[in-house]
Amino acid sequence: MNNSNIPNQEKSHPAFEVYKVLDKGFIRLVDCMPSPCDPNSISADDAIAQMARVSYGGGTDKKRDNSGLINYLMENRHTSPFEGVVLKFHIKMPIFVERQMSRHRTSSQNQLSARYSVLPNDFYIPNPDRCQGQDVDMKQGSCGHLSNNEKISKSINEESNTSYKKYEELLEMGLSRELARTVLSVNIYTEAYWMMNLHNLLHFINLRVSPHAQYEIREYAEKMRETVKRIAPITLNSWEKHVQKSISFSKEDMSIIKECSNVDIELIKNKTEELGWSKRKTDKILSKLNSLS
Amino acid sequence: MNNSNIPNQEKSHPAFEVYKVLDKGFIRLVDCMPSPCDPNSISADDAIAQMARVSYGGGTDKKRDNSGLINYLMENRHTSPFEGVVLKFHIKMPIFVERQMSRHRTSSQNQLSARYSVLPNDFYIPNPDRCQGQDVDMKQGSCGHLSNNEKISKSINEESNTSYKKYEELLEMGLSRELARTVLSVNIYTEAYWMMNLHNLLHFINLRVSPHAQYEIREYAEKMRETVKRIAPITLNSWEKHVQKSISFSKEDMSIIKECSNVDIELIKNKTEELGWSKRKTDKILSKLNSLS
Amino acid sequence: MNNSNIPNQEKSHPAFEVYKVLDKGFIRLVDCMPSPCDPNSISADDAIAQMARVSYGGGTDKKRDNSGLINYLMENRHTSPFEGVVLKFHIKMPIFVERQMSRHRTSSQNQLSARYSVLPNDFYIPNPDRCQGQDVDMKQGSCGHLSNNEKISKSINEESNTSYKKYEELLEMGLSRELARTVLSVNIYTEAYWMMNLHNLLHFINLRVSPHAQYEIREYAEKMRETVKRIAPITLNSWEKHVQKSISFSKEDMSIIKECSNVDIELIKNKTEELGWSKRKTDKILSKLNSLS
Amino acid sequence: MNNSNIPNQEKSHPAFEVYKVLDKGFIRLVDCMPSPCDPNSISADDAIAQMARVSYGGGTDKKRDNSGLINYLMENRHTSPFEGVVLKFHIKMPIFVERQMSRHRTSSQNQLSARYSVLPNDFYIPNPDRCQGQDVDMKQGSCGHLSNNEKISKSINEESNTSYKKYEELLEMGLSRELARTVLSVNIYTEAYWMMNLHNLLHFINLRVSPHAQYEIREYAEKMRETVKRIAPITLNSWEKHVQKSISFSKEDMSIIKECSNVDIELIKNKTEELGWSKRKTDKILSKLNSLS
Repeated sequence: MNNSNIPNQEKSHPAFEVYKVLDKGFIRLVDCMPSPCDPNSISADDAIAQMARVSYGGGTDKKRDNSGLINYLMENRHTSPFEGVVLKFHIKMPIFVERQMSRHRTSSQNQLSARYSVLPNDFYIPNPDRCQGQDVDMKQGSCGHLSNNEKISKSINEESNTSYKKYEELLEMGLSRELARTVLSVNIYTEAYWMMNLHNLLHFINLRVSPHAQYEIREYAEKMRETVKRIAPITLNSWEKHVQKSISFSKEDMSIIKECSNVDIELIKNKTEELGWSKRKTDKILSKLNSLS
Repeated sequence: MNNSNIPNQEKSHPAFEVYKVLDKGFIRLVDCMPSPCDPNSISADDAIAQMARVSYGGGTDKKRDNSGLINYLMENRHTSPFEGVVLKFHIKMPIFVERQMSRHRTSSQNQLSARYSVLPNDFYIPNPDRCQGQDVDMKQGSCGHLSNNEKISKSINEESNTSYKKYEELLEMGLSRELARTVLSVNIYTEAYWMMNLHNLLHFINLRVSPHAQYEIREYAEKMRETVKRIAPITLNSWEKHVQKSISFSKEDMSIIKECSNVDIELIKNKTEELGWSKRKTDKILSKLNSLS
Repeated sequence: MNNSNIPNQEKSHPAFEVYKVLDKGFIRLVDCMPSPCDPNSISADDAIAQMARVSYGGGTDKKRDNSGLINYLMENRHTSPFEGVVLKFHIKMPIFVERQMSRHRTSSQNQLSARYSVLPNDFYIPNPDRCQGQDVDMKQGSCGHLSNNEKISKSINEESNTSYKKYEELLEMGLSRELARTVLSVNIYTEAYWMMNLHNLLHFINLRVSPHAQYEIREYAEKMRETVKRIAPITLNSWEKHVQKSISFSKEDMSIIKECSNVDIELIKNKTEELGWSKRKTDKILSKLNSLS
Repeated sequence: MNNSNIPNQEKSHPAFEVYKVLDKGFIRLVDCMPSPCDPNSISADDAIAQMARVSYGGGTDKKRDNSGLINYLMENRHTSPFEGVVLKFHIKMPIFVERQMSRHRTSSQNQLSARYSVLPNDFYIPNPDRCQGQDVDMKQGSCGHLSNNEKISKSINEESNTSYKKYEELLEMGLSRELARTVLSVNIYTEAYWMMNLHNLLHFINLRVSPHAQYEIREYAEKMRETVKRIAPITLNSWEKHVQKSISFSKEDMSIIKECSNVDIELIKNKTEELGWSKRKTDKILSKLNSLS
């Protein structure tokens, strides 16, 4: 286990904690707008509400508190105010993880260049438990225990060493860095500064903490979620309820459910009243359920 | 009614029909990739499937037909293949509609410049039926009949004429076009070429055919939907089922429904079997309903 | 002159100064990453250098100081590190200015909605000196003095008042806000939160402080430049030298200059030596001049 | 040499030629908007002019021919009409090249997934001549002949085979594809559909045909340039003159040149007259040279 080159973080806010990820990687928040360390600054949640309120001008939405407003924005997918919060991370991750991250074109990033610098001998070696078999249902996934997993993990380690030794040999033979690096395998670690606004970041997290995402990128996405929780807890909570853990039924799904279930609208009305839901919120669920009854 | 300056369209495919919109506007498809008029070209639906298939390489997804593949992509929100189809429109619309369209930053556009040219005397005058009152529930909307609606429509027409007369006067007094145009009201018509890829266009249409969108932009979005239906019918159909007409319940919604309804899982299994759903599709709805039973 | 609704700014750093713009507008920085008010934060210039250095890893570019590195990045158009600085503004501007700003799709913004709120009676009235004639050379511009400019300015003011009075009448007649606002002229003021990263912002400023841009948007772009100067002075200085005030000659231009001028390469070599230019920098100008001698 | 899996192209227009690139790669145009195979369609150059002309409305720029208009747009960096042309490529390239291409976030792409499919044994092996040493001036480059280059090329080939053999072994041991592929080196080939609008594509080509770009990506960018030449020859020509082969001098450069050269303005005036330059064009070069005389 080698995360020795993790930078010291001098910012005191807990969101700036450095997280170790996988065997040799890390992720840490480098900066954030608004800054949680700026004594004159409002919180990220408040900055979202502040940006949203400009839409209403001298208008009608001044009374709602910030938390209610954030819920309203999230429920109705009014996404632009969430673009007003920006997070910048420093990430050390294997190249195959970085390649998945680069599919998301809404990030700004700067990455370690192996044309300029010699990469250090840091490869991701999955531990034996992670060396799972091919998932047959999910064609892109892995699952299950393999009895030879110790051997597999060792074998990946060996091949990584061979790859690195060859890299060093080619450099010693005088070959340029930009060509020598082409023999390195995609489990070698790279580093990047990587930033996104919160709207895009929540979309990224949603896709990459999913069980369909590869385990290794999930580990990074989970730490991003942790960081968002510390920066914008009201927003994260609202997003989990209204987006991440929402369940979406297609038109076909709804028609089958209608045929095979019994939804008691009166009971639902009573329940929402009991829970103190607003008329708007109650009307919304009733209109969704309309086709079912 | 004056749409006299609608351009002649020479392309024979029905997707290139020119639609009149509002009192003096129009929308027409100018070009599309793939071109429905290119005899060597595959259809837009097939181009989406073709782009998706590159992911699978020599892999596992060759057997599914294009229609099944498009459904799979849509259901699972694999959005990138839909970026491979591009539509370019020529649109004549009031400035207040154009300002709503410009909120969508994924379009490419070129617009008539009132710094270069003198704008013609074309203003959007809502007909009396459209001159509705303020919606009290939906704070940004309008609804209901107004008894003085004839007078209102006429009044808007008068103010538009006044605004245009002042514009002409200022130009005659020698004022530059870029300043004279500042007295024109936002119901004056402008023209633009406007293009988007199909992924972004479907997102645009979803937001802008919604009852929360203003009636005037909805009219344009509806015609775009018509055009997409002629260009990529399988995709549009799949999108309507899986995205537009899907219904999404928050975590809270689901827990209330659980308490107040009775979902018969066995009945649902029988029903999906009867309908010939695949195991994957059946498992999906069951896992969604899991929390309800 | 009425900027009475300018918000109080509580941040003490000079970059947060509120600038009045035009007759009733303003622009102020709301937030910035990195925050100049965060005592633990590095400066924006240093944040750019820090982001750039991740490319070099254990590599070769550690010795150069931040200012030299920023010059190198700017000269060679290595733009990504400048994306790591973000500025968020609050802007009050006429609609016709906002429409020009919206052409730049790299901003995030939230704007006052006239569907939700009744707009206040604030119109941009160009003062008489600004009421210039049509520029005949620059077809989209204005220039020169008009003898009737007092009358023109007054006339714009009158028409704005007429437009607003009609707006109020329509609202009183019960017409919805979303329709009533369509009679307002494009010189009415709107407000927005508007943010961009520094790379895109410098591009925006370059286009919009140009003499080809309309005077009114230029006034806003100038204040943005002032703000950048206070946030990232080294970057702004470098950008002015290497981008904004650089002069670009086409292939044809160069061949004409070659024929009609006499460039003394030896003299240039001596001069750069005298000025202490690095070999790299000297080689660069010599190679550019190569085709001339 | 193995490009056996190059797809057959059925489109007859020369732009659809399949280019072999490197030892086992290829690039081919898959589709283009406007389609050069659509008999009713205008050319790409004409589509650019058409989109630009919407700005002028009934205005002033109707007389200029398309070629003159394209030159004007290019010279003055009016970039939006070039977004109206879109090219879609099918590319087979090594992963290290794809990683450079992914830095350009303006493309849409779909790529072969090694989570779904087993990658074939296709690695990029630089031929001996390409196995150059480290460039000392350009820290990220390579140059010069190495006497042991045959050995180096062979050595890269061996390591690629070792890497692939290990990959096969891991798959045979039951390891999931998503993990087994992590031992593959970045010189293995991948495939993608990759599209960009022409504005962004020309920017991409400019950066990637530069001598600062790595040889391997340059080879792909050169073929893209060839394709653009066949699709939009007037635009490509204009771009080469006004952008790619333009030379830009910083403020400092200009002041040194001023001191060390003698520019004869009268001679230049005569020359431009002789060449039949327009007044606008002549004024432009004179104003650029102004600071020099």
